[in-house]
Amino acid sequence: MFGGEPHASTKDSFETLEISRFIHGDNGVGNVELAEPSRPAQEASAVDFIIESVHRYGDDLVIVPTGPLTNIAAAARKDPEFAAKAHIVLMGGALTVPGNVTRWSEANINQDPEAADLVFRTCADVTMVGLDVTLQTLLTTKETALWRETGTEAGRILADMTDYYIRSYDVTAPHLGGCGLHDPLAVGVAIDPTLVTTIAHNMKVDTEAPTRGRTIGDDERLNDPNKNARVAVAVDVDRFLGELMDRIGATIKAAS
Amino acid sequence: MFGGEPHASTKDSFETLEISRFIHGDNGVGNVELAEPSRPAQEASAVDFIIESVHRYGDDLVIVPTGPLTNIAAAARKDPEFAAKAHIVLMGGALTVPGNVTRWSEANINQDPEAADLVFRTCADVTMVGLDVTLQTLLTTKETALWRETGTEAGRILADMTDYYIRSYDVTAPHLGGCGLHDPLAVGVAIDPTLVTTIAHNMKVDTEAPTRGRTIGDDERLNDPNKNARVAVAVDVDRFLGELMDRIGATIKAAS
Repeated sequence: MFGGEPHASTKDSFETLEISRFIHGDNGVGNVELAEPSRPAQEASAVDFIIESVHRYGDDLVIVPTGPLTNIAAAARKDPEFAAKAHIVLMGGALTVPGNVTRWSEANINQDPEAADLVFRTCADVTMVGLDVTLQTLLTTKETALWRETGTEAGRILADMTDYYIRSYDVTAPHLGGCGLHDPLAVGVAIDPTLVTTIAHNMKVDTEAPTRGRTIGDDERLNDPNKNARVAVAVDVDRFLGELMDRIGATIKAAS
Repeated sequence: MFGGEPHASTKDSFETLEISRFIHGDNGVGNVELAEPSRPAQEASAVDFIIESVHRYGDDLVIVPTGPLTNIAAAARKDPEFAAKAHIVLMGGALTVPGNVTRWSEANINQDPEAADLVFRTCADVTMVGLDVTLQTLLTTKETALWRETGTEAGRILADMTDYYIRSYDVTAPHLGGCGLHDPLAVGVAIDPTLVTTIAHNMKVDTEAPTRGRTIGDDERLNDPNKNARVAVAVDVDRFLGELMDRIGATIKAAS
């Protein structure tokens, strides 16, 4: 585990980079070679794009942040209407279980605790899909073997990328016996909220040592009847894994 | 709040004593004068008494610890059958909210984290009634005034004791607007478990700095289908307060 004390920021950034390389490979996808993207990077501001999208699509849009909440917090700061209207299902945090960076902080939240705190305090509709549930939905090489066995290029690439990730868990969390389906579960919950059991709660993020980066209930709003967050604390593991394998299987087939 | 860093143990014990006096008075009941107890202190071992009671009463007995879990842990260590058979509804801990001694630890757990950890890991049936719910069930001087207005000695004594406690909250947690009904709610849940909503979970207690005394899910047992704890995360406030006032009202009447 990557436990222990918080570090000074420079050392921390270096260690975060080293750990990210260990988990995700040098290129972010397990060192699997991919074709160069055909679409160039967008020049427009990501924050403005997010704000405009909420105004354009309204309740049809669910934003699924799967990294630090820096841009989402910037959007909420820039446009109070964004905070009031956006539907957010985020992957991050750990309320009822320990963190994965320190004993109290999860990686996405840990990268920008102030941003996460602002999102939890100001955004009207936030669903937190954290380690509480994502470490219950595990993928193993048994499943990735099924993708490889399709004999397709798409199946091979996806299996290789995922196997790299699964192998990192053998070192970081061998007791789990597989890799956590962190971001896929957040997307699954955005599509079908009934995959998880949630508790309605008002959340905050500790921004000061020693528990910087911890997601926890906001004691000042404990008895406020208006709850702006739902925190996932249980998940229908079999149904989610079934859906995931069906959809990825269909996508691999369609790509062949 | 009594927040901040953990202290060295001597200073910690002194501060705990000072804080206890502030909250509970010099005599533990808000400095209200009570008659001397007519029954002498028992000579038998408390630990043996607890163990023997579980063997004697079986499923008819629910133990409701409302302080440090030192004796309960000693019973579990001494007799594995106690750990397997005892039904425990404890007041203590804070899973989804901050603590009341530090930002991460609740007072009962904080007084003996090792004992609490052992109870959570070895006892087969533990319900945790922590700050998550007890800080939602608040009593104010409006309710204690009803006891005083009965014009009875019992009503006056109970109101005086409780008002002392309520006044301490004006200093320690003024945002609550009342005192937490910590131990009464644990007793209520022992009588009627439907008063709270619980999540089934395997719990542990951090015993090392910096989060010593924190109650949190045990990551090693997250995917163990056997859950030995139920953690209360929501409470039917109105129904509990109604029951409490009815029962105390009847008790005051019976004592007159």
